[in-house]
Amino acid sequence: MIDGIKVVAFDADDTLWENEAYFQEFEANFCKMVGCYVTSEQASAELLRTEMRNLHLYGYGAKGMMLCMIETVCKVAKEESGLMAVQEILKLGHELLQIPVEILPGVETVLSALTKKYQLVLATKGDLLDQERKIRKSGIQHYFDRIEVMSDKTLTDYQKMIDGIGCKPQEFLMIGNSIKSDIEPVLAIGGHAVHIPHHITWQYETQIDDSVSHDFFRLEKIEEVLNYL
Amino acid sequence: MIDGIKVVAFDADDTLWENEAYFQEFEANFCKMVGCYVTSEQASAELLRTEMRNLHLYGYGAKGMMLCMIETVCKVAKEESGLMAVQEILKLGHELLQIPVEILPGVETVLSALTKKYQLVLATKGDLLDQERKIRKSGIQHYFDRIEVMSDKTLTDYQKMIDGIGCKPQEFLMIGNSIKSDIEPVLAIGGHAVHIPHHITWQYETQIDDSVSHDFFRLEKIEEVLNYL
Repeated sequence: MIDGIKVVAFDADDTLWENEAYFQEFEANFCKMVGCYVTSEQASAELLRTEMRNLHLYGYGAKGMMLCMIETVCKVAKEESGLMAVQEILKLGHELLQIPVEILPGVETVLSALTKKYQLVLATKGDLLDQERKIRKSGIQHYFDRIEVMSDKTLTDYQKMIDGIGCKPQEFLMIGNSIKSDIEPVLAIGGHAVHIPHHITWQYETQIDDSVSHDFFRLEKIEEVLNYL
Repeated sequence: MIDGIKVVAFDADDTLWENEAYFQEFEANFCKMVGCYVTSEQASAELLRTEMRNLHLYGYGAKGMMLCMIETVCKVAKEESGLMAVQEILKLGHELLQIPVEILPGVETVLSALTKKYQLVLATKGDLLDQERKIRKSGIQHYFDRIEVMSDKTLTDYQKMIDGIGCKPQEFLMIGNSIKSDIEPVLAIGGHAVHIPHHITWQYETQIDDSVSHDFFRLEKIEEVLNYL
């Protein structure tokens, strides 16, 4: 039992619904598209470099990924067939932006058990329009008292969010799949955190700080949260 | 004097700072780039069609515009030189995402005069990361009690915002440059609105509903707001 909690916040992508799998499928398709110029490993590495270089400009989300793929194509492709790959990226990107939202197992059980007992917050990072579309399609927005779409999930972003909610850090519990975005910054401001690893994690999110405290719960299934709340 | 106001909200792009001019310059460059295939008018019309078709996917902002330009290039350009135009679009798009924020004349006078007397809200539409970057660079964020980045500015979006603030529509005054986004939806929910036309308006924002009420102030200069508050 974690005492004193008044607010419970959930990460959305890969905690409430499937997400990274679609991005990785998009990336696999991209690697195939440029397969005549570079190997899959080279394409993937070049794409990640491009994404990191542009993160401060594009932020997270599908549009930034599409633009980074296009930039990578310009770099690796030979002039004459590059434009076909660009068209294909736009086509697949549009599909990515319209994939149905697939709620993860156990999520509704947890939300319906907690919704009357705690103030529930959906705290997600990414493109505003992307995230709003997923939230609307998810059909689970009625469980939440607040929905927070953040452009990033740093310590400062969480501090601002908690100030906006009007609760103390020790009254705040974050549930998420990313150590870097959902766990480490929340612990750093004095909050509680539960880590529920997802089967697929974006490479960027695995670049974690070794000095991160290990003072958090790691659960295999989201339903196990109910044993602690 | 408008009585009973507790909250004053400002649109940001083209009300507080320069914006549309940079987008139109980007578009002019784009038209030049594809000038060997189509006329400027055709390029511009094709781009607007592409933007409207993708608005529900991309939302507003520079990344969506870049993707729409790339899609338009794929449509109009001949294969062999299309990729060079794509590279140029990415380059110009990056420049667009990093343009300094130029506060419009009179804005600081108005904000410093109102900041103690009213709850001030910055209510802007667009890409979350784009908007946050501009807000940070603007150096005027300390005047505002709330900053609201919305993916759109419909009647429902304003209703949600006002509910979040906890004020009545008749206590809410919106100041902005777009009839479609800043004036019409605010009047529709029973709020007050002041229109300050900007010298440049995006074509999309000029497609207004003819039935819109004309019960709002139109001022030439933002400082004139101080005569009414």
